[in-house]
Amino acid sequence: MTSTAQQEISVSSSSGTRPVSKDAIINLDHGDPTMFESFWMGVGEAADITIPSWRTLSYFSDVTNFCWFLQPEFAHEARRLHYLVGNAVADDRFLVIGTGSTQLFQAALFALSPSDAPEPMSVVSAVPYYSSFPRITDYLRSGLYRWRGDASKFEGDAYIEVVCSPNNPDGSIREAVLKSGNGKTIHDLAYYWPQYTPITGAADHDIMLFTVSKLSGHAGTRLGWALVKDVEVAKKMVKFIELNTIGVSKDSQLRAAIILKAISDGYERPDLQTKPDLKMFEFGRRLLSMRWQKLREAVKASGIFTLPHFESVHCKFTGETTEACPAFAWLKCEREGTQDCADLFKKHKILVRSGGHFGVESNYARVSMVDRDETFDLFIERLMSLR
Amino acid sequence: MTSTAQQEISVSSSSGTRPVSKDAIINLDHGDPTMFESFWMGVGEAADITIPSWRTLSYFSDVTNFCWFLQPEFAHEARRLHYLVGNAVADDRFLVIGTGSTQLFQAALFALSPSDAPEPMSVVSAVPYYSSFPRITDYLRSGLYRWRGDASKFEGDAYIEVVCSPNNPDGSIREAVLKSGNGKTIHDLAYYWPQYTPITGAADHDIMLFTVSKLSGHAGTRLGWALVKDVEVAKKMVKFIELNTIGVSKDSQLRAAIILKAISDGYERPDLQTKPDLKMFEFGRRLLSMRWQKLREAVKASGIFTLPHFESVHCKFTGETTEACPAFAWLKCEREGTQDCADLFKKHKILVRSGGHFGVESNYARVSMVDRDETFDLFIERLMSLR
Repeated sequence: MTSTAQQEISVSSSSGTRPVSKDAIINLDHGDPTMFESFWMGVGEAADITIPSWRTLSYFSDVTNFCWFLQPEFAHEARRLHYLVGNAVADDRFLVIGTGSTQLFQAALFALSPSDAPEPMSVVSAVPYYSSFPRITDYLRSGLYRWRGDASKFEGDAYIEVVCSPNNPDGSIREAVLKSGNGKTIHDLAYYWPQYTPITGAADHDIMLFTVSKLSGHAGTRLGWALVKDVEVAKKMVKFIELNTIGVSKDSQLRAAIILKAISDGYERPDLQTKPDLKMFEFGRRLLSMRWQKLREAVKASGIFTLPHFESVHCKFTGETTEACPAFAWLKCEREGTQDCADLFKKHKILVRSGGHFGVESNYARVSMVDRDETFDLFIERLMSLR
Repeated sequence: MTSTAQQEISVSSSSGTRPVSKDAIINLDHGDPTMFESFWMGVGEAADITIPSWRTLSYFSDVTNFCWFLQPEFAHEARRLHYLVGNAVADDRFLVIGTGSTQLFQAALFALSPSDAPEPMSVVSAVPYYSSFPRITDYLRSGLYRWRGDASKFEGDAYIEVVCSPNNPDGSIREAVLKSGNGKTIHDLAYYWPQYTPITGAADHDIMLFTVSKLSGHAGTRLGWALVKDVEVAKKMVKFIELNTIGVSKDSQLRAAIILKAISDGYERPDLQTKPDLKMFEFGRRLLSMRWQKLREAVKASGIFTLPHFESVHCKFTGETTEACPAFAWLKCEREGTQDCADLFKKHKILVRSGGHFGVESNYARVSMVDRDETFDLFIERLMSLR
């Protein structure tokens, strides 16, 4: 079992800020998706929102829906976008809204764990796993579930396996590694969008988590959604969110509905299709693809790091055969005598997240690829000088 | 210990909706604060908000603040309003933002419970206590804290006492009933605003919780804040919210900042002071005072119920000596042979919350006083006919 005491992620004075000079600290520890700012500045007023002061005072959004705090306009736009992109089966699935996919992950743990079991349910994920899973599972010392680390080393029949695909931190496409009939899965598909990875088909798992943070960059909106097959599981997830926060900000839902609408309109409204700037997935892929190229060149020049290799695959959404351009770079330091990759970066005033947080050795480190241009460019410049 | 299995609060098809006919179901089970809708309609555009699509993408609001996800404009307006109303000491206190005061309550439990204690910390509150406290404390079967029921019956030295004042459900002004040096308190001051109760002084407790739901009626915005004396406690509350939802919707914070600004402006901007409609607390007090008068008359006419009595007290904010006008009516059914007050109401298609949820007998019931006019008026009409 991983010690969660070591898993502390810290927010520092450089988090989310622009580097102010050539030798400033560059913070690429978090996956703060500010690279999308320039896209939204180009979209203009169509995606702005005005909320009158008298609107959505009530706790209730739609009492005819089992998820009574879900704004119907958000549900509509989420389903429309899944249909457009073809990345997940959304029709005939129960949609649960959450305060980010972090809350939905906890709602899913609550829903999949029996309330009266003598022992907590085991929660596992194959290494390298998303650094927050252990701490989020264990911070309240719940009697319902407990973090048990690497799925590949787990022995037992009853468990919840978290499958993140494309995987945070390494961008790999994943399937569950455990196959027991008593096991449950949660699929975190935050990055299964065309800017990050080729769309090979519509995912259709029991519980699938998505978030606007990684879709459109609106991390500050704190909004995620789950597509759920089983109505009883969906109802228990709703109960968790009711007890945890009595629903989800309607302002965030209304805003996210307009953001998702603008994304779909960029593809579906003929009057807008002449403006290539309004196609968000193309914007994201173009930018990330250039960044990955620069990164691979800088890594090659440095001679001390390696990066994962991604096969070119046909994307059903774009129609092109392309490599993945993940939201994070998973760097391995190959230099002899250097055991701590994040520490090496830190000496050059670059903050990244060490492999230890992801359940592997500290010669690995995760670097955000989704920050603003000026931050990324400075990172590449400094990486080139690193030997 | 109270059985939490019986504490289930259910959302039904009549929750949050307007009664469609004279004999429709009237739902006054929840404290849905829709009576404020008509006030905000009168305010006009000054309190509307427009958010450009490129704004607040980042997870981070202000990394110079220990509460890095707090929007500075909200903190400013919250402190300004406390200063105007005089209901709480806000200067030199740490302000923690939360997804409603429900999340902040859990953050406070997390912050006040030792992380390594062999036994969970006992959480108590004097009866009648807010119906959600038991369930919110116990739903995850945390090893950190556990609900232990009525504070007046608690024997022990280490505990967290929740003090709700004015109290939900009965409107009484409360102080902690336990006095051990090892005990901690959480003060839920959601209703300590001039529309509900005379302001007798600036509260100055260790942890004080507030929420826009009950202040201005914006329950759908899911926003609360805590004023905290001890920096270490405040930091642990921030850590909880980081793990629970990675911060709080910035859209909600931006909107609530404008709402709070409009309330303060209604009193402080000389150019607006000629419009009495812009004084929110006067609006709230006038409406609630009329409703309480109607309610007391109807209760008297029915002859089978009683209501709490409130002494007239000098309010430092309004300068008047007035009775409390709580957000809930706490009715006791005195009719012989009727043991279940909520059940009696239900037979007349009025949904209210039974005393059992609040740790007392079911001859008590809680009725919302903050719904829309048409719902409240229909309730009074039906109550008059009830014998």
